[in-house]
Amino acid sequence: MPFGYRGPYIPTMTVRLVAHYHVRSDASSIAARAEAIAAEQSVEMPVSAIDDRTVLDEIVGRVESIGELGDGQFEVRIGLAPSTTGFEPGQLLNMLFGNTSIQNDVMLADADFPEAFVAAFKGPHSGLDGLRTRVKASSRALTCSALKPQGLPPSDLAKIAGQLAAGGIDYIKDDHGLADQSYSRFKDRVTACADAVAESSARTGVATRYLPSVSGNLDSLRQQMRHVIMSGLDAVLIAPMIVGLPNFHTLVRENPDIAFMTHPAMAGAARIAPSFLLGKLFRLLGADATVFPNFGGRFAYSPEECRRLAATALAPWPSIRPTVPVPAGGMSIERVDEMLDFYGTDVMLLIGGSLLAARERLSQETARFVEAVRRHG
Amino acid sequence: MPFGYRGPYIPTMTVRLVAHYHVRSDASSIAARAEAIAAEQSVEMPVSAIDDRTVLDEIVGRVESIGELGDGQFEVRIGLAPSTTGFEPGQLLNMLFGNTSIQNDVMLADADFPEAFVAAFKGPHSGLDGLRTRVKASSRALTCSALKPQGLPPSDLAKIAGQLAAGGIDYIKDDHGLADQSYSRFKDRVTACADAVAESSARTGVATRYLPSVSGNLDSLRQQMRHVIMSGLDAVLIAPMIVGLPNFHTLVRENPDIAFMTHPAMAGAARIAPSFLLGKLFRLLGADATVFPNFGGRFAYSPEECRRLAATALAPWPSIRPTVPVPAGGMSIERVDEMLDFYGTDVMLLIGGSLLAARERLSQETARFVEAVRRHG
Repeated sequence: MPFGYRGPYIPTMTVRLVAHYHVRSDASSIAARAEAIAAEQSVEMPVSAIDDRTVLDEIVGRVESIGELGDGQFEVRIGLAPSTTGFEPGQLLNMLFGNTSIQNDVMLADADFPEAFVAAFKGPHSGLDGLRTRVKASSRALTCSALKPQGLPPSDLAKIAGQLAAGGIDYIKDDHGLADQSYSRFKDRVTACADAVAESSARTGVATRYLPSVSGNLDSLRQQMRHVIMSGLDAVLIAPMIVGLPNFHTLVRENPDIAFMTHPAMAGAARIAPSFLLGKLFRLLGADATVFPNFGGRFAYSPEECRRLAATALAPWPSIRPTVPVPAGGMSIERVDEMLDFYGTDVMLLIGGSLLAARERLSQETARFVEAVRRHG
Repeated sequence: MPFGYRGPYIPTMTVRLVAHYHVRSDASSIAARAEAIAAEQSVEMPVSAIDDRTVLDEIVGRVESIGELGDGQFEVRIGLAPSTTGFEPGQLLNMLFGNTSIQNDVMLADADFPEAFVAAFKGPHSGLDGLRTRVKASSRALTCSALKPQGLPPSDLAKIAGQLAAGGIDYIKDDHGLADQSYSRFKDRVTACADAVAESSARTGVATRYLPSVSGNLDSLRQQMRHVIMSGLDAVLIAPMIVGLPNFHTLVRENPDIAFMTHPAMAGAARIAPSFLLGKLFRLLGADATVFPNFGGRFAYSPEECRRLAATALAPWPSIRPTVPVPAGGMSIERVDEMLDFYGTDVMLLIGGSLLAARERLSQETARFVEAVRRHG
């Protein structure tokens, strides 16, 4: 009976990083499969060929438990030595799922981080409270829209940003497709949109924030951050799986006054549980707000997955601030009440395309969205 | 009849970047699904809400063709505007698969890159010829092994490296789990292993190369590259999906004399065709050699997928050098003949764990591997 199996006792001097995998297997081979994953994610060689006592005791992954999930799925928990990660974000991901990501019978479901990871990575600087404070919202849900489509010149994007801000929205993020393109250079776009939002904001009295999408290698990210700060902005959008976790986390640590909203592009969510990647790992590395596909939109997340993701992003975690869940992807004003009933008020609602479809009535539609959120409950 | 469907004619001033997706769908909805992907991967909003003529003509993704693959799968080709990528590696991946990676009915199968991408990214500096020249092999297959397990101090890893080199192997790569860890600092390890390999190499007369695994953010990658060069080395191992494509490509362009072997960690191969990601995109961005899981090993790649990957890495591509395919993952000396029959000689064979299992006979086993490759055919 493999269930409830615990590996042979091996003394260890460190509290392990425990990765949870969901593995498709038959019951007779799950114990061996679990041992194989433990080796793959640590020493990546036959354990029988290792003589070194320290490596065997401290470094080789350890099967902590195996549980049956039903439908031919097992939950396997592997204890990994924290020291193997070097406490570097890329190497952390490598140790959690590097090679095993290539095995299509395994999904990374979750991980338990010992305290050393909290001390090393620290999580968001602003988090839920910081994002509420920025827009003077005490306890209500936050509102957000997206600047699109790419291809427009900076002046046209700025016009849309100004209209969204005129509707009194809290946050306006760049579409994650806006980068540094010939038809709309990052600096020109950011300057133009920041000015347009500031102008509308002065009229409405709402402290609307504009979040430019930052991209490229670390040099380019740092240049863009300098321009963001020079433009008087204090929040950005970033896609950690595109720029690389090491760059994302470096930027977070270097910019304590900037809030980071993460975008799930390339999150390959079919193989890593969204609640872990977008809700927990991005939070550990410093996401203040995390965008994810809401159920019933263009993506196939289930309500359960969305609820789990939001709960994970907000769950109590000593000395790590809560990350704001930002459900998005094909949302509309008509769903505001349903979404707030579902998520509560510790949330930022993001409506993009369906507001933009209002064209010249964009400000009024935005105001209707804002009003629907304020009125709720 | 959606098959062979071509989108409405839209004039375009640029040759499109054409992404090929495999989509699970029923025949009656594939045309609409294809249009939805075209919007998702370009403007990410309802196309009906766009008035701007240039955006409609130049930027909105275009369904180029839809073909039936059988078993409820369709191949959809979408033409994307090259300018949306900003010719930046991260943004290129974002445009090819960013949001669509989250939709689990779609796989990125391939992409056709117009010439502008070749001019922008240039591919490998060394490639197949450069890796053969380094070790004075004119036309035979190349040999490679891996330094493991992590957890050993630099002196023990150096001892193993020296033994592998004493067996006359061509390339010795760090395990991709070796980063910059407390028990084995990058600089100490690289210095020790480089010295040990140089010493053995002087005795054997084989120009064995040691490839340290580089990791971290761009600052750390650059520091590590400086140490690699100072240590007299001219090749490294790197995991592009861990460090981020922007960092990987920056490093390639900054170091024309260094050969880059790529590792597939976090390649999430179930959702992006390995032949495209590891064989074509990594090649475009500068991989000189690409490690991938061989069939019949610890990973589930099929022989067809492996053949396609190797063929893609080596395929004629004007002004882009061929990348060396490096099948790996649970290989053994007993499979050398079979692998060379399968791949031919434009290949590097990588045997790691099963050589290391020889312990004190490591040099002799390595020599047996080297001999098997030289003797073949």
